[in-house]
Amino acid sequence: MIAPERIQDYHIKWKHLQDAMHKSGTDGCLVASGINLFYLTGVFYSGYCYLPAEGEPWFFVKRPNGLDGDHVVYIRKPEQLPELFQEKGIPLPGKLMLEADELTYTEYTRLQNALQPKETMNATTLLRLVRRVKTPWEIEQIRLCARQHEAVYAEIPSCYRRGMTDLQLQFEIERRMRLHGSLGLFRAFGPNMDIFMGSILAGENAEAPSPFDFALGGAGMNASCPLGANGTLLTDGMAVMVDMAGNYSPYMTDMTRVYSVGTLSDDAYRAHQVSIHIHDEIARVARPGTACADLYNLSLRIATDEGLAPNFMGTKQQAKFVGHGVGLQINELPVLTPRSKEVLEEHMVFALEPKFVLPGIGAVGIENTYLVTSQGVEKLTNAPEEVIRLDA
Amino acid sequence: MIAPERIQDYHIKWKHLQDAMHKSGTDGCLVASGINLFYLTGVFYSGYCYLPAEGEPWFFVKRPNGLDGDHVVYIRKPEQLPELFQEKGIPLPGKLMLEADELTYTEYTRLQNALQPKETMNATTLLRLVRRVKTPWEIEQIRLCARQHEAVYAEIPSCYRRGMTDLQLQFEIERRMRLHGSLGLFRAFGPNMDIFMGSILAGENAEAPSPFDFALGGAGMNASCPLGANGTLLTDGMAVMVDMAGNYSPYMTDMTRVYSVGTLSDDAYRAHQVSIHIHDEIARVARPGTACADLYNLSLRIATDEGLAPNFMGTKQQAKFVGHGVGLQINELPVLTPRSKEVLEEHMVFALEPKFVLPGIGAVGIENTYLVTSQGVEKLTNAPEEVIRLDA
Repeated sequence: MIAPERIQDYHIKWKHLQDAMHKSGTDGCLVASGINLFYLTGVFYSGYCYLPAEGEPWFFVKRPNGLDGDHVVYIRKPEQLPELFQEKGIPLPGKLMLEADELTYTEYTRLQNALQPKETMNATTLLRLVRRVKTPWEIEQIRLCARQHEAVYAEIPSCYRRGMTDLQLQFEIERRMRLHGSLGLFRAFGPNMDIFMGSILAGENAEAPSPFDFALGGAGMNASCPLGANGTLLTDGMAVMVDMAGNYSPYMTDMTRVYSVGTLSDDAYRAHQVSIHIHDEIARVARPGTACADLYNLSLRIATDEGLAPNFMGTKQQAKFVGHGVGLQINELPVLTPRSKEVLEEHMVFALEPKFVLPGIGAVGIENTYLVTSQGVEKLTNAPEEVIRLDA
Repeated sequence: MIAPERIQDYHIKWKHLQDAMHKSGTDGCLVASGINLFYLTGVFYSGYCYLPAEGEPWFFVKRPNGLDGDHVVYIRKPEQLPELFQEKGIPLPGKLMLEADELTYTEYTRLQNALQPKETMNATTLLRLVRRVKTPWEIEQIRLCARQHEAVYAEIPSCYRRGMTDLQLQFEIERRMRLHGSLGLFRAFGPNMDIFMGSILAGENAEAPSPFDFALGGAGMNASCPLGANGTLLTDGMAVMVDMAGNYSPYMTDMTRVYSVGTLSDDAYRAHQVSIHIHDEIARVARPGTACADLYNLSLRIATDEGLAPNFMGTKQQAKFVGHGVGLQINELPVLTPRSKEVLEEHMVFALEPKFVLPGIGAVGIENTYLVTSQGVEKLTNAPEEVIRLDA
């Protein structure tokens, strides 16, 4: 079932998860969400993966037909699990991990009733912690993604035509993305995080508050998905913030750049430089052991010193984070918030996005994705960082 | 909070849900999923909508900032609900409905702990039943969607260039979709139903089984989303089935048409005609009161009589339904399955998609969306139904 050339990568992941399970004294972890099944197997299937605290995982598959390999067992419904465990000689877990933040109440309780563990714990929490630290193959996938992300951003000025709306610009960028291999699907963790291919914000729309937990808002093109571009006509003096998805491999990158129609006000260029300065300062201090809260506080302090606190991460509604992990989902751990207890570890990958909203103009500031190395951080998304004129 | 010109529509929905609540003897329904909040309010927000068995609903909003109107109450966390209920004079529900198939285990149990009802029931089940029957405004939205869906399909032949892959054709159709107002986001009910903008199947890829619960499969462009087009080069004698999303309003239509490169084998044209014949037969018999199981069985009987049972709804993996409700999500109720207990009701909207997979050639058959009227059904998606040559 698992591609032979990938097996080493999955051994690393299983070991990492088992180490974490030992610390919490659990007997096994049963995964049923598509994203975690893919994380643990490289295959997107309907069914379950059971990882015992010791030994190899078992793959219980409902669909698709035709998967084979060691430890692959076809199953119709979760109520068959106890008899299949018995048949295969897998001890029933007393203390079981289930994905409490990913499975619906119905799915979770059905698995609980089927397996009757003495105790259940939250596999989502544990998997999100494990997934923070990327394996060599995952890092390679992220690097491949970054190359395409950069190539598409290089084409953005050629997507612009005078008289366009933000949506028309976005449609053209979406096309370039797909031609460069964008997988389309843009996965986020948690409920109500709807987004399509990313976000473009221009002019007043940058201030529009959104229900979602993304860094900035925007009214969107319809009330059914209130985020991002809303049909704003791109006119002189407007900042156009492009934060389109880096989904060119299953492992994503996150990158924001700012474009302008004509020139912007001096304040806008200054605020943009402050964002770049925050990046430089964070890249200077961040390394394994750095507290994520310190990185947020450093960003806010620089913004405040520059008189930009009222514009930092929004105006009418301000996000309380300045960065986040990226991987299979766009909002992984760690999160750079003032109250975070997390510290950076080698091979974490996070996006940093200190942004400023300027009423009437739009949003400025950049976002890059960084890999935490043994000594510091490495910038993975390399593209010109100054504001680029679309109508040059 | 609710647009004044829409208030009548929401009164119909609340009344319909309250009638259903009375039948099950519940005191109130607390909705927290984005999709059901949008259904009940027309606003996508983070928070809750509480509909008591009698009277008007209450809107508890976390985000976005700035919503106002009668019965709008800002809230930070669900634990505040009891004190806010008391403050507003809302009786605490003894028998409470929560969305057991939409909320995660953590969200559901947190609401349960906050409100301490004597009993909880499944709001998802009830809302899915209520949402089957569309209001006049919803039907109007579906009609608007159908017009754009048809307009895009009329452009499909002009998207084709000789030597294209299925993905390249899809990217060009996606662009036309967006220019015609496609909202991008394509919502499905349930876990692990990942899809991006729809599906194109050509040649052998039509046989590839998928983990998802869509009618047909396809390997997809990456293991992280195994559905639909996979880079197949479009060559002579190949059927190209286009089932791209009809998401031009929040309320969707579903439509499939088949194109060819060169001419197809006689068998392929014959199977395509059988699909059209199934549509005609179902359109002739379907009306309020018709059992959904009968519609499935009628389809299968015609397919079997024509010797096409082994090709019906797949080959290596066959879907066990031939149609489904559409609305805010692409897989609503009713579902046309052999075991369905549902019967058609006036103002239900469903898609019918009898399809045949022909090894080596691709998939043939059409899909249309129908509105159940007082007397029968009305076809909402009108576009030529024969196989259309791309290289004509």
